[in-house]
Amino acid sequence: MRDVCVIGIGQTPIGELWEMSLRDLGAAALKSAAQDAGIEQVDALYVANMLAPRLSNQAHLGALIADFVGWRGIEATTVEAACASGGAAFQTAVRAIASGMIDVAAVCGVEKMTDATTGPVTSALATAADADFEGAHGASFVALNALVMRRYMYEYRVPHEAFGPFSINAHQNAVNNPNAMFRKAISEKIYNNAPMIADPINLYDSSPICDGAAAIILCPLEMARDLSKNTPIKILASATATDSLDLANRRDMLALEAARMSAARAYEHAKLAPADIDVFEVHDAFSIMAALSLEAAGFAERGKGTYLAQDGEITVSGRVPISTMGGLKGRGHPVGATGVYELVDLITQLRGEAGANQVPNAAMGMSQNIGGTGATVVTHILGREN
Amino acid sequence: MRDVCVIGIGQTPIGELWEMSLRDLGAAALKSAAQDAGIEQVDALYVANMLAPRLSNQAHLGALIADFVGWRGIEATTVEAACASGGAAFQTAVRAIASGMIDVAAVCGVEKMTDATTGPVTSALATAADADFEGAHGASFVALNALVMRRYMYEYRVPHEAFGPFSINAHQNAVNNPNAMFRKAISEKIYNNAPMIADPINLYDSSPICDGAAAIILCPLEMARDLSKNTPIKILASATATDSLDLANRRDMLALEAARMSAARAYEHAKLAPADIDVFEVHDAFSIMAALSLEAAGFAERGKGTYLAQDGEITVSGRVPISTMGGLKGRGHPVGATGVYELVDLITQLRGEAGANQVPNAAMGMSQNIGGTGATVVTHILGREN
Repeated sequence: MRDVCVIGIGQTPIGELWEMSLRDLGAAALKSAAQDAGIEQVDALYVANMLAPRLSNQAHLGALIADFVGWRGIEATTVEAACASGGAAFQTAVRAIASGMIDVAAVCGVEKMTDATTGPVTSALATAADADFEGAHGASFVALNALVMRRYMYEYRVPHEAFGPFSINAHQNAVNNPNAMFRKAISEKIYNNAPMIADPINLYDSSPICDGAAAIILCPLEMARDLSKNTPIKILASATATDSLDLANRRDMLALEAARMSAARAYEHAKLAPADIDVFEVHDAFSIMAALSLEAAGFAERGKGTYLAQDGEITVSGRVPISTMGGLKGRGHPVGATGVYELVDLITQLRGEAGANQVPNAAMGMSQNIGGTGATVVTHILGREN
Repeated sequence: MRDVCVIGIGQTPIGELWEMSLRDLGAAALKSAAQDAGIEQVDALYVANMLAPRLSNQAHLGALIADFVGWRGIEATTVEAACASGGAAFQTAVRAIASGMIDVAAVCGVEKMTDATTGPVTSALATAADADFEGAHGASFVALNALVMRRYMYEYRVPHEAFGPFSINAHQNAVNNPNAMFRKAISEKIYNNAPMIADPINLYDSSPICDGAAAIILCPLEMARDLSKNTPIKILASATATDSLDLANRRDMLALEAARMSAARAYEHAKLAPADIDVFEVHDAFSIMAALSLEAAGFAERGKGTYLAQDGEITVSGRVPISTMGGLKGRGHPVGATGVYELVDLITQLRGEAGANQVPNAAMGMSQNIGGTGATVVTHILGREN
């Protein structure tokens, strides 16, 4: 098995990008990543996307984007695991290179959500949940997360205000990220008084509907120095685990079992423990998911995820910095692209290029990309290769 | 790089399967494949599907089907490349095992098309083509293939009747396949008098709208004998190539450039030539595609694909047997699942289990899975391991 590393990253700003189409977004991120790596051609492209077949009437994004970026002829496919598509596509690239069959691969997460109105977007997002057991009963994706949050608050006697620091930290970090959608800090008061979306999830517990694309260039570690001047960032572990799509069939609704298994497999493979991780990019699509992810990955005991946030340990100077470039809440959550954005942010930290948001001496980082209400979780551990 | 082989195959019959849901179909094929292999558990599942997000309001099929088949917790994702999804998912499994990161993997192609009416199905199939440059102008998928066929007939002065043998051969072979949708032979007269769908494509030039699922179990060659009693079928080459999605941007509309490149890469990797291939499972979604695929893969000169068919060389006793279990035309074309069905049919031949349709001494076989009007083509070469 060959060691695999990242030699280039790129992204578009996240927002309501009316002037850019799906292929424009994908190509912009890929060109930026290729330029960053200093390469012109790749052997394969893995596109992460969830909603284009419904919102843009477009499947088959692999070939579409490969052609539009100027790489006609290369191998290209699309990988989908709902909101965990980005992590899954990155894993596909890692495997392809590790197998020896592909040398230089590109991953591109792309999502275009704002061409449709709220109704179609809400229906499309619900395809991440179980269509027969949840969607057919009218449960939207935010409603399902609200059920989990409500149960969490009841079970562990945690008040709603306890989740505030997740959102406040994410917004604070987004201020310094030029690619973030919401570059404004929010206060505790603003969080507590925000309009309700699906009780107990309020506006600031929720990530936004948005457009964006992020891209990563990977190659075998042994080729990295020849191909690129960038510090290679090595993939130390890549692990996916799954659970039932529908909440009712989970063994324990608050355990986020797939996140626990995915993290455990990653730690085992990398021979590391939570204490070794300097930065943790969580999937804070809703603040409840940030808390559950921290617990499942071993950074907090069960029911104590919000304590970590309230103690200030999740800020860039804390013990477990999360959402360091704004997270899904502040940077934005273009769903199929999100896992790639998480990795791009993590790599930015490991390269020491995070500017005002730099986590001091970040050498080892982890990302956890969650699909559905926790049905697919992809965990990656990356480390700086000096 | 580890050698990879197939140790189990399974499939559901193809048809209008009203009584089976998407997850029922996937689980049935996977259980059958696992039973065939003699295994109970896999490490990873790669689902091939194109239309579920639109026709069944369901994305996230990897976790959904992994859970339903009883494999909750394993790694699972969905791979999509329009009608080439099946081949692409199989390639993902081959890479995962070759990399050493996954030992036993399952591939499941599944498609449920008949729960929707013709309009939504036609619109959903059009997402394989370019939404901006083709779909937005009302070009359905059959209309685009009709343009290619018309151009072929004009350019090479080939009459419509010349395509008859493709359909007649496919239907003849489907008679003996208990899983085929159309188990009836057709005559030249029936072909020539069939109702027109999109001139010059008639009913018998077109594959049907249908439901079905097929599955394959793979493992490293070195583990095959310990895991399963079945003759291992080794993957000798796995190659994907792409082209523009829209026909207007192709360098040469009749060259099927991605099919040519994909086949060339596969031959090179396996160190084989067309003459070494005993069976060739083509993607005969439309009879024109069978002709173009034969030409692109080097079995016929350009413009001479129909000659091969007319000379009887494509039958099970011919020089280049194709669609040996009925192909997309006779067996059926559940789009996202088709690439897996092609491989299952090929493996059936290489195992010598094709019954009345057995190609004598089939030791080396190739499949070519085409997405869109040729924008993604996945070629696999497999060989019996004695």
